[in-house]
Amino acid sequence: MDFLSIEKVKEAKQILSKIARDTALIHSSFLSKNNNIFLKSENLQLTGSFKLRGAYYKISKLTQEQKVKGVIACSAGNHAQGVALASKENNIKSTIFIPSTAPISKVEATRAYGADIRLIDGVYDDAYIEAVKFQKETGGIFIHPFDDIDVITGQGTIALEIIEQIDKIDAIIVPIGGGGLISGIAATVKQLKPDCKIYGVQAQKADSMYESIKNHQRKELKHVNTFADGTAVKLPGELTFSFCEKYVDDIVTVSEDEIASAILALMEKEKMVAEGSGALSIAAVMFDKINLKNKNIVCIVSGGNIDVNILSRVINRALLKTGRISNLTVELLDKPGQLRDVSSIIARYGANVIRVRHNQGGEGTDINDCYLKISLETRDFNHFSQIQNALVEKGYNILSTVQ
Amino acid sequence: MDFLSIEKVKEAKQILSKIARDTALIHSSFLSKNNNIFLKSENLQLTGSFKLRGAYYKISKLTQEQKVKGVIACSAGNHAQGVALASKENNIKSTIFIPSTAPISKVEATRAYGADIRLIDGVYDDAYIEAVKFQKETGGIFIHPFDDIDVITGQGTIALEIIEQIDKIDAIIVPIGGGGLISGIAATVKQLKPDCKIYGVQAQKADSMYESIKNHQRKELKHVNTFADGTAVKLPGELTFSFCEKYVDDIVTVSEDEIASAILALMEKEKMVAEGSGALSIAAVMFDKINLKNKNIVCIVSGGNIDVNILSRVINRALLKTGRISNLTVELLDKPGQLRDVSSIIARYGANVIRVRHNQGGEGTDINDCYLKISLETRDFNHFSQIQNALVEKGYNILSTVQ
Repeated sequence: MDFLSIEKVKEAKQILSKIARDTALIHSSFLSKNNNIFLKSENLQLTGSFKLRGAYYKISKLTQEQKVKGVIACSAGNHAQGVALASKENNIKSTIFIPSTAPISKVEATRAYGADIRLIDGVYDDAYIEAVKFQKETGGIFIHPFDDIDVITGQGTIALEIIEQIDKIDAIIVPIGGGGLISGIAATVKQLKPDCKIYGVQAQKADSMYESIKNHQRKELKHVNTFADGTAVKLPGELTFSFCEKYVDDIVTVSEDEIASAILALMEKEKMVAEGSGALSIAAVMFDKINLKNKNIVCIVSGGNIDVNILSRVINRALLKTGRISNLTVELLDKPGQLRDVSSIIARYGANVIRVRHNQGGEGTDINDCYLKISLETRDFNHFSQIQNALVEKGYNILSTVQ
Repeated sequence: MDFLSIEKVKEAKQILSKIARDTALIHSSFLSKNNNIFLKSENLQLTGSFKLRGAYYKISKLTQEQKVKGVIACSAGNHAQGVALASKENNIKSTIFIPSTAPISKVEATRAYGADIRLIDGVYDDAYIEAVKFQKETGGIFIHPFDDIDVITGQGTIALEIIEQIDKIDAIIVPIGGGGLISGIAATVKQLKPDCKIYGVQAQKADSMYESIKNHQRKELKHVNTFADGTAVKLPGELTFSFCEKYVDDIVTVSEDEIASAILALMEKEKMVAEGSGALSIAAVMFDKINLKNKNIVCIVSGGNIDVNILSRVINRALLKTGRISNLTVELLDKPGQLRDVSSIIARYGANVIRVRHNQGGEGTDINDCYLKISLETRDFNHFSQIQNALVEKGYNILSTVQ
């Protein structure tokens, strides 16, 4: 396997100093329960993710002859923006193949960096086929999103910054998609600070590296289905697989709801926007996936490019899943004063009513009855239970609750 | 009027170094069109806003005798959290009066800092009456949210940091509610860098300082109604009014939709969560309220404590108002294939369908017709017009559009 050279990581850091930000390492009081948690805020990186680092270093290492031919990438997200900006800064042409299913906001952001965009009907694989065809026609340089030693070396610069930013560091938790980010960080850290543990995190629904490491060989998933779209990779890289085998201490997985809760927590507690992939490390800490106590832990928040429509849905889902929004349907006798009575019970318990629907004659109710569908802002599940109990005590029939 | 002493601002900075963060000054490529824009990220401050600075300095200056009696505050938001954490760190008791209409998340955050919370039925004024009553009974120290020279001095520490963080600085844009933040910043800057301009920003619907300065006397508004709730103040302070008269170069106002667009832009482009008040300075820049060219400008992003339910609504409104989500109702003849035809026109123009409602026999349609309500993700208004024109060209009748 290719070796990652610390000298080259240092060279990459030097080259990147022209463009990339030294992103802040932010202490999180909220997350620091059993451990001291720091966030490496690559969501605040230019282009909204760490991908700029690898793409920029890779492109800067191309020969003049290669640069003239231009670069090609295939991506629906962060890699596209990284390659586009890196190309613009190096004054070379970039052609980026994007599946038509990608969010408009990401397509527009990539276009704004001056890339030539080719929107391809279908999903990633369809766009990839077109990109390969185009590469053969033009002889341009294909920039792989992760399975490339220069790209990996660029991502390794994050580790150099962390080592400068914090004295004692016990563990780093890193999201894994194709494995480029964790390969760069792990190979750098294990050479410079061999005692520091490296943990990877994947979405349960896109756990290709987790499965591959468990089986000691690369495993291709049939489906990947996660809103952590930046890490939705079916097959790990060859190079990144071998780096993970060699350097990564353990890989854990988190559920979609855990990721949603982590995104919400980052927004509410740390005022930062993270995309699904960017919140994987936070989900791992919040839901105790890694068994550590009294340690200094750095979570890589790898990116913040989440479509706001999706963000809006994530917020709603996370509020429901943590008991902060609760829905219930109450059967009412169709007589005056019942709406007032139910409202006052809810008010007494300090819950805010967000939405009310009052219907006569729903399914499952008698013809003379009606029902009330209420959405409430509650403190937690316990708070919601208190309200339900109070309603039942007053003789109301609760038809359903949704959480 | 009380004088603001630079020596005391420096003392405050020293005292605050134990607890408050030196928040990052972040260059914004997105906002830097006519000027070079930097964001002073007080939304990333502990407690989620700058209010901690003034409250902490004020409390640290109390005598031992005063500290024993505890402190009292009345607030539905950032000041409550600032006083609560400052009290906890100084080991003194805080009693905070909060109107029952405040979002649960803010109440819980304040409680988590160890404050004794008194939830008062009604709005801010009702809570204030109870706080004053309690103050008379207990002899505790009332911590004013803005009209207090120590509080103002604490906010001035932001200016010291900015002056350290950037060499040449031409202007600072600051949100105004009661006026404590801008008083501290302006009085500090004008003593140290007299050439630097200071601009204030208020929500049009809560423009008490703007009106007061225009009329050369404090003016009380009957209503304040803005989702920039942190700056919803009916009457400016005496002290802060005189500081603004003396030190502030100009005050501008922004609309609710401009604030919503600024919040969305901060999330999408800078991956930061700002509350309405925190985004005022950004709205002023985005919508060209201040006539400057080629200058180094610092925007104070004063806080990030926005209720996620409100955030979700803000996102939707801003998407509509910028043509990123578009709604239209199309009349269909009730015959096969029409849904397919409309869908394919939309798809050809690269818009994503978010929601569809297909109804037979709506009001305003013939009994045999039906209509299709569609929500679309579009690039901008122009994109939406293209789609409408294409539908009309194919003979479809568009009943309504909502933006």
